[in-house]
Amino acid sequence: MSAVVTLTTDFGLSDAYVAAMKGVILGIDPGVRLVDICHTVKPRNIAQAAFVLSTAYRFFPEGTIHLVVVDPGVGSERRSVILKTSSACFVAPDNGILSYIIEQSSPGPDPAETGSLTERQLGPELEAIAITRPQFWRSPVSPTFHGRDIFAPVAAHLSLGQPPCDFGESITSLKTLTLSRPRRKPDDSMVGNILHIDAFGNLITSIRCQDVPPTTGTLVTEVGGRIISGLVNTYAEGEGLLTLFGSSGYLEVSLRDGSARDFLGADVGDEVRINLPETKYD
Amino acid sequence: MSAVVTLTTDFGLSDAYVAAMKGVILGIDPGVRLVDICHTVKPRNIAQAAFVLSTAYRFFPEGTIHLVVVDPGVGSERRSVILKTSSACFVAPDNGILSYIIEQSSPGPDPAETGSLTERQLGPELEAIAITRPQFWRSPVSPTFHGRDIFAPVAAHLSLGQPPCDFGESITSLKTLTLSRPRRKPDDSMVGNILHIDAFGNLITSIRCQDVPPTTGTLVTEVGGRIISGLVNTYAEGEGLLTLFGSSGYLEVSLRDGSARDFLGADVGDEVRINLPETKYD
Amino acid sequence: MSAVVTLTTDFGLSDAYVAAMKGVILGIDPGVRLVDICHTVKPRNIAQAAFVLSTAYRFFPEGTIHLVVVDPGVGSERRSVILKTSSACFVAPDNGILSYIIEQSSPGPDPAETGSLTERQLGPELEAIAITRPQFWRSPVSPTFHGRDIFAPVAAHLSLGQPPCDFGESITSLKTLTLSRPRRKPDDSMVGNILHIDAFGNLITSIRCQDVPPTTGTLVTEVGGRIISGLVNTYAEGEGLLTLFGSSGYLEVSLRDGSARDFLGADVGDEVRINLPETKYD
Repeated sequence: MSAVVTLTTDFGLSDAYVAAMKGVILGIDPGVRLVDICHTVKPRNIAQAAFVLSTAYRFFPEGTIHLVVVDPGVGSERRSVILKTSSACFVAPDNGILSYIIEQSSPGPDPAETGSLTERQLGPELEAIAITRPQFWRSPVSPTFHGRDIFAPVAAHLSLGQPPCDFGESITSLKTLTLSRPRRKPDDSMVGNILHIDAFGNLITSIRCQDVPPTTGTLVTEVGGRIISGLVNTYAEGEGLLTLFGSSGYLEVSLRDGSARDFLGADVGDEVRINLPETKYD
Repeated sequence: MSAVVTLTTDFGLSDAYVAAMKGVILGIDPGVRLVDICHTVKPRNIAQAAFVLSTAYRFFPEGTIHLVVVDPGVGSERRSVILKTSSACFVAPDNGILSYIIEQSSPGPDPAETGSLTERQLGPELEAIAITRPQFWRSPVSPTFHGRDIFAPVAAHLSLGQPPCDFGESITSLKTLTLSRPRRKPDDSMVGNILHIDAFGNLITSIRCQDVPPTTGTLVTEVGGRIISGLVNTYAEGEGLLTLFGSSGYLEVSLRDGSARDFLGADVGDEVRINLPETKYD
Repeated sequence: MSAVVTLTTDFGLSDAYVAAMKGVILGIDPGVRLVDICHTVKPRNIAQAAFVLSTAYRFFPEGTIHLVVVDPGVGSERRSVILKTSSACFVAPDNGILSYIIEQSSPGPDPAETGSLTERQLGPELEAIAITRPQFWRSPVSPTFHGRDIFAPVAAHLSLGQPPCDFGESITSLKTLTLSRPRRKPDDSMVGNILHIDAFGNLITSIRCQDVPPTTGTLVTEVGGRIISGLVNTYAEGEGLLTLFGSSGYLEVSLRDGSARDFLGADVGDEVRINLPETKYD
């Protein structure tokens, strides 16, 4: 059975870089199924790529190989790695792009500082390999396009069934971004951040469903100087600004029939505060 | 033989929503052929999606399944449906997005008012099913992403050969947009509207080849305050503004080596008037 | 074994023109592998399409069929052609879009004037066919969409193994753009042009690795009124403006962590001058 290989890059849609990688993969595994996740990640925006990937990989069949190339450090000392989880395999530079995958497999301690890059020990449920064996690479390797010359052929050989350990040495830690997590405040409110804004202008925050204690009260959300009272279930409920838990499990701020981003002038990183129902809000 | 599943959405190219649907489909039918029709439909623009779909579906092999998810009412009372024609199957919300398909299968009476949504009885050549049986869905279903949790798995099971009637009850009517049709005027001119503007800036109007009586005279077109005399066959004929019948059978206004949209400041919905050769034009 | 068919067009991402071609291909060869190279070529920009294609086709498996439809002259006298090289097959209008393919197979004499279109005799390593036999086309053929009605079905029949000579008569010359080549100046400097600007804002010039004599000295590059001293190997080396030989073998000007295009206000066609190390620069 042929494997699925997905591709996530910041290569954009106006060059042939993605196609070159696909050509290389098809030359090695002609039966592979190629699926684009996203190629319009902003240039060099590792955090954005990490988030977008994290919202899709769980929906692919077991054994899917995810090729992720947002790689501003290409050709430098940064490692190239394979990360194997219980259900998928990731081929990527070791630059934090797999942070959500690692966090979702084994949540780490509360981060000191959001956005920094730290070395993190992996739990036993994860297997990581430093890609070091050139026999699987194209030759010569362009120092500026490991996506085509290293990551793509490695993904293709993985899809043919080559075990990860054949590509290099086992390693026990990977670089991870310290991800934004909602903070509980002394007044019992919770402050999160906008992680991502989707094409509809929905603001996807770092506050997940499980961060909010179950309650029968009314959730109050503050974002961009506005107060939104209550939670809805769908984008078609209510009028104006809405909050709901979106399809990836995060609290979202949405504008009925419009873009919450444009309406609020909001940006990734902006704070979002919720007041839990049992607490006073003023 | 594996089926083809096409995808048309307003999800854009910067999120992983389309990829999540593809992952779900491949998990159910690993042999399926996935083809993107368009994902840059303007958010919630059902009429645009309906038109774009209508220009492509006829060129796909018999039995192709078209997954169409422009779904502002997701999670609300709107129905999810399967529409089966003699050559294809459509999986979509019942919100007018299949209007051209229905109209092209069995033209309805002249609409009273363009753009409104009305319930329309289907002819015997069309089979429609309300998707109601959860055993084919992902569980739990996100109230904001039926594309991933209902439409995608239904399309995948259809592509495996599951008959439409297994997904829910037969229904005899669907919601349709009353589509713009050219109007014959007392002076024998005909007035249509711009239905779509393509990436070249060509203005695609609601006036079809069959709406214009055969004649040996000169067709005169008025749009945006300009008069265009005569019809050409190709974009490379003549200079300046051109009119021709385009590859989907609609009268188009084009600018030689440029964008008619930019040149005329034209927009979807704008009126286009033609004077039939036998008539006087003043 | 099913063949790979790639697609390169200026059709954009908001219409269904590409999908219509794919539908036609899948109707003829249901097993074909379809890969997009690029669909955001600027409308009618043959030189851009020619370049983008030239950076990708070498990475596809032997026997890949490349469908290339940037075709402002569609329906006019311009020929439709198949070009077969030792490793690939191209289906395209005869309008210069295959210029790099032809040049890379058998470099021609120094061009008199860049950008003009001239008829070029092909070497014996290339086989060309004028597509003239309608039995392989869709019927009727739209005069404005040969991509769907001629090129797509021809590519699909080629992918099924039909030999090129079955589609029409052998021809011995094709139209080619006279490509920009670096010019050696009396002072031993070399002047090239920006051929392409990628999505990162990297300026890809016409100066290839083999145009620069091997040396141990320091290469000095002048572009947009700026002087850049030395060559680096990767985008992560050094600060500010960088020059390096990119993954397609061309000299590139890049801005560390930014867009050289935006920083320099550079555009395709702009001159780039290098001073070879042995020469004085002033």
